[in-house]
Amino acid sequence: MKQSLTELQTRDLQHVWHPCSQMKDYEQYPPIVIKKGQGVWLYDEHNNRYLDAVSSWWVNLFGHANPRISQALSDQAFTLEHTIFANFSHEPAIKVAEKLVTLTPDGLNKVFFADNGSSAIEVALKMSFQYHMQTGKTMKKRFLALTDAYHGETLGALSVGGVGLYNEVYQPLLLDTVRAQGPDCFRCPFQENPGSCQAQCIQFVEDELRQHHEEITAVIIEPLIQAAAGMKMYPPIYLKRLRELCTKYDVHFIADEIAVGFGRTGTLFACEQAGIVPDFMCLSKGITGGYLPLSAVLTNDDVYNAFYDDYGTMKAFLHSHSYSGNTLACRVALEVLTIFEEEQVIDMIKNKGERMRKLAKQAFEELPFVGEYRQVGLVGAIELVANRETKEPLPSEERIGYQLSKRALAKGLLIRPLGNILYFMPPYIISDDEMDFMIDTTKETIMQFFEEREGVSCSNDNQHCHL
Amino acid sequence: MKQSLTELQTRDLQHVWHPCSQMKDYEQYPPIVIKKGQGVWLYDEHNNRYLDAVSSWWVNLFGHANPRISQALSDQAFTLEHTIFANFSHEPAIKVAEKLVTLTPDGLNKVFFADNGSSAIEVALKMSFQYHMQTGKTMKKRFLALTDAYHGETLGALSVGGVGLYNEVYQPLLLDTVRAQGPDCFRCPFQENPGSCQAQCIQFVEDELRQHHEEITAVIIEPLIQAAAGMKMYPPIYLKRLRELCTKYDVHFIADEIAVGFGRTGTLFACEQAGIVPDFMCLSKGITGGYLPLSAVLTNDDVYNAFYDDYGTMKAFLHSHSYSGNTLACRVALEVLTIFEEEQVIDMIKNKGERMRKLAKQAFEELPFVGEYRQVGLVGAIELVANRETKEPLPSEERIGYQLSKRALAKGLLIRPLGNILYFMPPYIISDDEMDFMIDTTKETIMQFFEEREGVSCSNDNQHCHL
Ligand SMILES: Cc1ncc(COP(=O)(O)O)c(C=O)c1O
Ligand SMILES: Cc1ncc(COP(=O)(O)O)c(C=O)c1O
Repeated sequence: MKQSLTELQTRDLQHVWHPCSQMKDYEQYPPIVIKKGQGVWLYDEHNNRYLDAVSSWWVNLFGHANPRISQALSDQAFTLEHTIFANFSHEPAIKVAEKLVTLTPDGLNKVFFADNGSSAIEVALKMSFQYHMQTGKTMKKRFLALTDAYHGETLGALSVGGVGLYNEVYQPLLLDTVRAQGPDCFRCPFQENPGSCQAQCIQFVEDELRQHHEEITAVIIEPLIQAAAGMKMYPPIYLKRLRELCTKYDVHFIADEIAVGFGRTGTLFACEQAGIVPDFMCLSKGITGGYLPLSAVLTNDDVYNAFYDDYGTMKAFLHSHSYSGNTLACRVALEVLTIFEEEQVIDMIKNKGERMRKLAKQAFEELPFVGEYRQVGLVGAIELVANRETKEPLPSEERIGYQLSKRALAKGLLIRPLGNILYFMPPYIISDDEMDFMIDTTKETIMQFFEEREGVSCSNDNQHCHL
Repeated sequence: MKQSLTELQTRDLQHVWHPCSQMKDYEQYPPIVIKKGQGVWLYDEHNNRYLDAVSSWWVNLFGHANPRISQALSDQAFTLEHTIFANFSHEPAIKVAEKLVTLTPDGLNKVFFADNGSSAIEVALKMSFQYHMQTGKTMKKRFLALTDAYHGETLGALSVGGVGLYNEVYQPLLLDTVRAQGPDCFRCPFQENPGSCQAQCIQFVEDELRQHHEEITAVIIEPLIQAAAGMKMYPPIYLKRLRELCTKYDVHFIADEIAVGFGRTGTLFACEQAGIVPDFMCLSKGITGGYLPLSAVLTNDDVYNAFYDDYGTMKAFLHSHSYSGNTLACRVALEVLTIFEEEQVIDMIKNKGERMRKLAKQAFEELPFVGEYRQVGLVGAIELVANRETKEPLPSEERIGYQLSKRALAKGLLIRPLGNILYFMPPYIISDDEMDFMIDTTKETIMQFFEEREGVSCSNDNQHCHL
């Protein structure tokens, strides 16, 4: 498997410590040095191209090096690249804030900018906490979050996260979060069917709220898809029930739409599908179409007003980042939101989503080792299992998702897995041919891999495969 | 004072929640909407211009809308805007990492990218902690930081911060940091003179280390200037002593050069002046010349190697942000570092620093209510006091720094204060005329303000002012 390294690869390995990586893995699979992007494609040093089926960690919406967005960025760079955002402002930020308020559920009237998803989560947690301190509810010092939640990497965000892979080692540094078992539709403890389900499993949250609501300031949740946990999907009814509980128990509802916002789930925001209004909505990733780090926290007037007072009362929200409200990033976000307005993006997502669902179900549902193909909007996930009946997981030591993704890469397809779950989250501008390539290549990769692993050979027709 | 609002100002106030602001203050001083930047100047809607003497929160180095940097950014946008950075890489990141390794003190060989200063601090804290977990020092679960420290706003960064204004309300959410009294040269408890001082006050840190070193993973410090606390400056000897103590007590040294890095203090990095090598160096702000959020944490091979192992040992550092290693931001950083190489930036900073020091000392040192004018590199600070002899602070309720800055703004000078400390941290490209304007306007503003406040009139000549 070892290839000889290019000069840039050697230089990379000498000094760059990559994110979310065991660097020793790079001995076998050195970093692929990308030179150019175009549409769904990334081109490496040798001009090999890779279809970016994960939208570069779920950020890209309208393709790489999108000429329209690049032009907007370029124009802004020559005019005003950035200005301090305390007591100063600029048109791109004002317009982005306005559009976000218009596009998000009613009542989310105020927009606070930050630089990345994790920082947005920290802002929401801090605001919710401080709100309660300033409105006399000084017992409220804990957050409630779900098992398998992912909200980012800074210590506050990591504290509400529920994926041990990311936060277990840091336990001594984390907040004492109230943890409730989240929805698990693939292995539903109530044997419910997502179509008719009334979200019985919300009772795990209610149990915790009943017991701890007086000390809980907010519940935080990833609406519709627990993404980092392996694209775990659950129906809108769960969110509706959760909203009711938050109101009943006087606890804030923080919707982390960082991964699912901006059309990913087939509606502009996932919360829409449940018809709910959260108290805080965190946005990032797609907000700049995959160009630049930027995040925003939206909240309502009630929260804003609890901080609005004479300076001497010391009620202000003093959070800031050096680049808060960065002009370049806001200008890019403005272009992205304008594309949503001018082009029928949501319809496009729905159409492409339907096509993907049909093709993917056909391609994967009967494959051996595929426990489930599931999809919401333009997010599709293949959960690989050792046994389709019992849903027994594959042995994690084998790193099968990882092996599969490396084989797919060699065929020109970038699908970075989550454990043994492969997923598709392509840029919205993916063409039919490109989608076909994505699905066919994935299928071929899975089949070849398991044929080798099991030491048997399958015909290309699932029916005849007897693994 | 109330002005009628422009349309954009009205729209801003409707939806934008600004950072580090009591929004009620904006009733009297609405946000200034910037349309254009050029060199040290920001231009508002009415084409009024403001000299950005704080480099937009200490980020700008080479002027606003710098044509060279904007061109590099623009070119990159049309080629490759961003790519996932796990298992992938690109030339701008590789080159920035190489240059940073070359430019920083020897031994800092590995570069981990993040999006903003706070995230870089979180990375360093998490890495240091995990390092000790993985090398058998599992008692080390606390950090040591100084009074008046500032390291950012996410809960981990806020936990090591020591400025109550920013973190007091959040105490129940913060880590139990070991706090040592930091240097305070303006009100030195040992009546030392910065010229001959041997950093006696390091004993406060040593006391804590002696007592707690077994449970301390790292000491974090802002080298040479505690910026957010009010540009509190201290001599390099303190850092040298601290480095010795960290080695003696087997504790990591985290240098937070986010505000002071990239030439601000007259050397490329502040640590150079003490001839020390930290175990972690956090960089941000100036790294992109004020264009885009980007940060980097540098560390040594010993740390890197403690995470380098077979995947199954679960020793990897899994921190990531969606936009880690963002291509656009790295391309801008590369251009900034190339400017440092090609133009004699450090010499320029030294020359301009000398000029600023001479002018400012002359302008401010004898002014009533000026307790001290202090300077390091191209950072100058005026500490206002009620009494020059006793150094008694001015009453904070009066918000005198704030009032002064508002008056300066009306004269075209942007000097956002820190409490009752006014400071200059101009872009390095500031011209002589612009520097004169900055200093003259500040002096005039201070004199007029205190004349009114005291109800007396001063001649323009300090000697004759008898406030
Ligand atoms: C749901 C969710 N929340 C928060 C984050 C953190 O965002 P960032 O990586 O920009 O810090 C992510 C990133 O993957 C996410 O998927
Ligand atoms: C010394 C220091 N550390 C950390 C930070 C935090 O950086 P950011 O605002 O980009 O999160 C700052 C910002 O002002 C700083 O001055």
